[in-house]
Amino acid sequence: MSEQEKKKFWTLSELAAEVQGELEGDGAVRVSGVASLQEAAEGEITFLANPKYQSSLKKTRASAVILSPGIPVKIPAIRSRNPYLAFAKVATLVGKIPYKSLGVSPDLVQDEGCRLGRDLSIHPKVVLGRDVRIGDRVTLYPGVVIGDHSVVEEDALLYSSVQVREGVRIGKRVIIHCGAVIGSDGFGFAPDGERYFKIPQLGGVRIEDDVEIGANTTIDRGALGDTVIGKGTKIDNLVHIAHNVVIGENCILAAQVGFAGSTVIGDHVTMAGQVGVAGHLKVGDHVTIGGRSGITKDIPPGRTVSGFPAIDHRDWLKAAGSFGHLPSIRKTLNQLQDRVDRLYQLLSGGKEDDGD
Amino acid sequence: MSEQEKKKFWTLSELAAEVQGELEGDGAVRVSGVASLQEAAEGEITFLANPKYQSSLKKTRASAVILSPGIPVKIPAIRSRNPYLAFAKVATLVGKIPYKSLGVSPDLVQDEGCRLGRDLSIHPKVVLGRDVRIGDRVTLYPGVVIGDHSVVEEDALLYSSVQVREGVRIGKRVIIHCGAVIGSDGFGFAPDGERYFKIPQLGGVRIEDDVEIGANTTIDRGALGDTVIGKGTKIDNLVHIAHNVVIGENCILAAQVGFAGSTVIGDHVTMAGQVGVAGHLKVGDHVTIGGRSGITKDIPPGRTVSGFPAIDHRDWLKAAGSFGHLPSIRKTLNQLQDRVDRLYQLLSGGKEDDGD
Amino acid sequence: MSEQEKKKFWTLSELAAEVQGELEGDGAVRVSGVASLQEAAEGEITFLANPKYQSSLKKTRASAVILSPGIPVKIPAIRSRNPYLAFAKVATLVGKIPYKSLGVSPDLVQDEGCRLGRDLSIHPKVVLGRDVRIGDRVTLYPGVVIGDHSVVEEDALLYSSVQVREGVRIGKRVIIHCGAVIGSDGFGFAPDGERYFKIPQLGGVRIEDDVEIGANTTIDRGALGDTVIGKGTKIDNLVHIAHNVVIGENCILAAQVGFAGSTVIGDHVTMAGQVGVAGHLKVGDHVTIGGRSGITKDIPPGRTVSGFPAIDHRDWLKAAGSFGHLPSIRKTLNQLQDRVDRLYQLLSGGKEDDGD
Repeated sequence: MSEQEKKKFWTLSELAAEVQGELEGDGAVRVSGVASLQEAAEGEITFLANPKYQSSLKKTRASAVILSPGIPVKIPAIRSRNPYLAFAKVATLVGKIPYKSLGVSPDLVQDEGCRLGRDLSIHPKVVLGRDVRIGDRVTLYPGVVIGDHSVVEEDALLYSSVQVREGVRIGKRVIIHCGAVIGSDGFGFAPDGERYFKIPQLGGVRIEDDVEIGANTTIDRGALGDTVIGKGTKIDNLVHIAHNVVIGENCILAAQVGFAGSTVIGDHVTMAGQVGVAGHLKVGDHVTIGGRSGITKDIPPGRTVSGFPAIDHRDWLKAAGSFGHLPSIRKTLNQLQDRVDRLYQLLSGGKEDDGD
Repeated sequence: MSEQEKKKFWTLSELAAEVQGELEGDGAVRVSGVASLQEAAEGEITFLANPKYQSSLKKTRASAVILSPGIPVKIPAIRSRNPYLAFAKVATLVGKIPYKSLGVSPDLVQDEGCRLGRDLSIHPKVVLGRDVRIGDRVTLYPGVVIGDHSVVEEDALLYSSVQVREGVRIGKRVIIHCGAVIGSDGFGFAPDGERYFKIPQLGGVRIEDDVEIGANTTIDRGALGDTVIGKGTKIDNLVHIAHNVVIGENCILAAQVGFAGSTVIGDHVTMAGQVGVAGHLKVGDHVTIGGRSGITKDIPPGRTVSGFPAIDHRDWLKAAGSFGHLPSIRKTLNQLQDRVDRLYQLLSGGKEDDGD
Repeated sequence: MSEQEKKKFWTLSELAAEVQGELEGDGAVRVSGVASLQEAAEGEITFLANPKYQSSLKKTRASAVILSPGIPVKIPAIRSRNPYLAFAKVATLVGKIPYKSLGVSPDLVQDEGCRLGRDLSIHPKVVLGRDVRIGDRVTLYPGVVIGDHSVVEEDALLYSSVQVREGVRIGKRVIIHCGAVIGSDGFGFAPDGERYFKIPQLGGVRIEDDVEIGANTTIDRGALGDTVIGKGTKIDNLVHIAHNVVIGENCILAAQVGFAGSTVIGDHVTMAGQVGVAGHLKVGDHVTIGGRSGITKDIPPGRTVSGFPAIDHRDWLKAAGSFGHLPSIRKTLNQLQDRVDRLYQLLSGGKEDDGD
């Protein structure tokens, strides 16, 4: 990957092969960036996902376009059944802007023992603690702070004001958005009946390769042992991940989701926004959780659940649709009781057998 | 407005006219600040909203006061039926502290091509990217970072550690509180069945005039096209606004609200805290949404809704009030089934017609 | 406490006495740090909470261990019925790393009138406003900003990028995690029917001694008067506390909880994650609130509540367990109506008395 990212350009035929698309027109066209139809310039590739933007296609200055079969086009193109995915793959290869080292700002503050890789882009006002290791081609925007003994591996990108505490490992090609906090203390206190005593949080955080973490998200360090975010998992903004949570690979966690401590999430789990997950649970592989759900029990693999407590998603849809009928249910039930009372009166002068 | 903000003081009669209040006492009194009853000094105006603080009124050192008709007062005053609104308007005119340029800190870092307005207040440790434009009388507190090609228009105020990415436009008199992030990447990934590929987020963010944005709130940039916050809208802390959301004018969004992508919100919409809104929806003008609601469908203009899924607010109140009765409803229903079974037995030896 | 924190080491017998544990082995062993079983070195004390880690106990290089009675051990030990609490107390005494002043970074920016205590640890890229007072042994990590007239009392610890606005008081031994914002403007606007006018937020924030505040949490300043966090209260990440909220002493507020303005919370209140509390309410002492609850009414002391609106926790558990049965309740109710209709028909030719 890093070899690829050092390429100055791709040819359209190389890209077509990478995304298994069909080349149309000049395969020797050089592509060094991606952009929208309106904003693309020469040397950039664009895409048409929505046929209603066909008119923009005629005016684009892009050198090539990715689009579905059947839409007429005059510039070189890659045809794909899934132009959205093909564009995402191309963008991953080409980079939004091809990586170019900006060097290391002369105002970098680093404590003893730091080891810096090559071809870095370290912006002004960055602070590194003691024994920090920064891999090749890492980008650190202004205000990034990295704590003692932490590691940022090659090709990682930390936007402005990302705060990384000590003893954190950030994998290759990880992207962390502005203001996210990695390695804050877990929330652990032992009560003596009156006061709370802080449990030292002695573990770390391990962010595996290709993870993306949203703006102002917080990931706490483990109490003992690490909090772990698995390879390829994507986390949105304002998510809270407590100490010793272990998230699997290739999960999607939407904004404002929260996890209590020590919960273990499988691979390929998808959670919509504002879900809450209690502590010490297991959520299996390929589970999908609907928005605003509250998870209070283990969820077996492959399930789709919603609600609080969460139940099967289709059952929840039906139950939620009935919720507004609760007042009329109560009223009908009361009426029915009266009618049955009267039936007993009619039948037996008010006497009822003692069956209940 | 900016002309007004350059005024050194207002006379009480000018202020009374601006807020359509009734002047009482010396209209030539000079007002250059606002403060609480307890803290106001000479030259400042205060207000009495709650009659129980009348005793503080006697002791205040303020030069004038805003209050309801009928409450006795010895200092110059503006009488208003809505003293809260009148005070807010006066505060908007006078400013909490009248704006005074503090100049530009000598440690300002700016990349090539920045254009800075006049009468600025740029505190230490601010970083501007390439081609940034800063309007007149803008205040940037420490740790503010503004990305390439972004614009901050006149009289805007960005508190410490606000992070603005590239290609963002911030309108006149906008206030952004500490730690807010504007222009982080939208959360867009295309799955290939195994991994997720990042969709480049090529749009920007447009914050219109007179918007206020709370602490640690995050507003993502558009995928293509802009995320937009309409003129005069006020957003509280820890709110999440996804890519390509369009919020109308003069909306109120309370804390911890979250929006998924591409949803369009009308003008004069009010949302209480912790509401979640799904993606690709339309919420009409003058809609009010109760706290903790989950919006999964379009909401027509003028409605007041609550719950998840949201229903008419009054219906939700009744249904929510019945929720605790669910176990007794089930029990009653079971008993009633038994009683009806016994009635059938009594009547027909247990045989029931096959109607159901 | 500060005297204790200046100690270079504790003897094991001193620590056993402090935590009312039973000393086993050499009480003269010197302890100057705490660590996990795996990571502890000579001079450090560790603990065994979970018997399944007994094998690690044999290999630890710690000088002493805290554990339950009955587990065999060869190194000096403190026996305690509650080793978790004993460890927390020991850690509070000994410190994760004994406090050592790192001095004041030469790049500290301070405005006029600041008063700095002794034995400080002020990292690079910190900014202090006018008339700020910093107590002895305070630690400020990179990117901390403290506004005018604010006070940080002795032994407080502010992690990187904590933002403190003007007029905030932070008590002794307070810990604030990365990115938290203290003293942002409250969310107060007066509508005139069309626009919203900002109400100046003239109060401050008072954080009492021994409070801990999580990463990216936001605590707004009061409109008039202060927002208050009581002594010993612990607040997790991404919590929102609005203007003029008063939180009592020794409360536990889990992640993503939110409070609307002017609500008053008693002492020893515990709230699980993602709870929302409406404005102007009173929650009594020793109340416990289940996760994701919505509080819309005052809660008397000692209650345990859940749900939205919140009801008795056990009632809520039962009701929530019945929620998925709503569709079958409606179906059964309809069937029962039909059956009763038929009974009336059987009995009286379809005529029913007009009782309902």
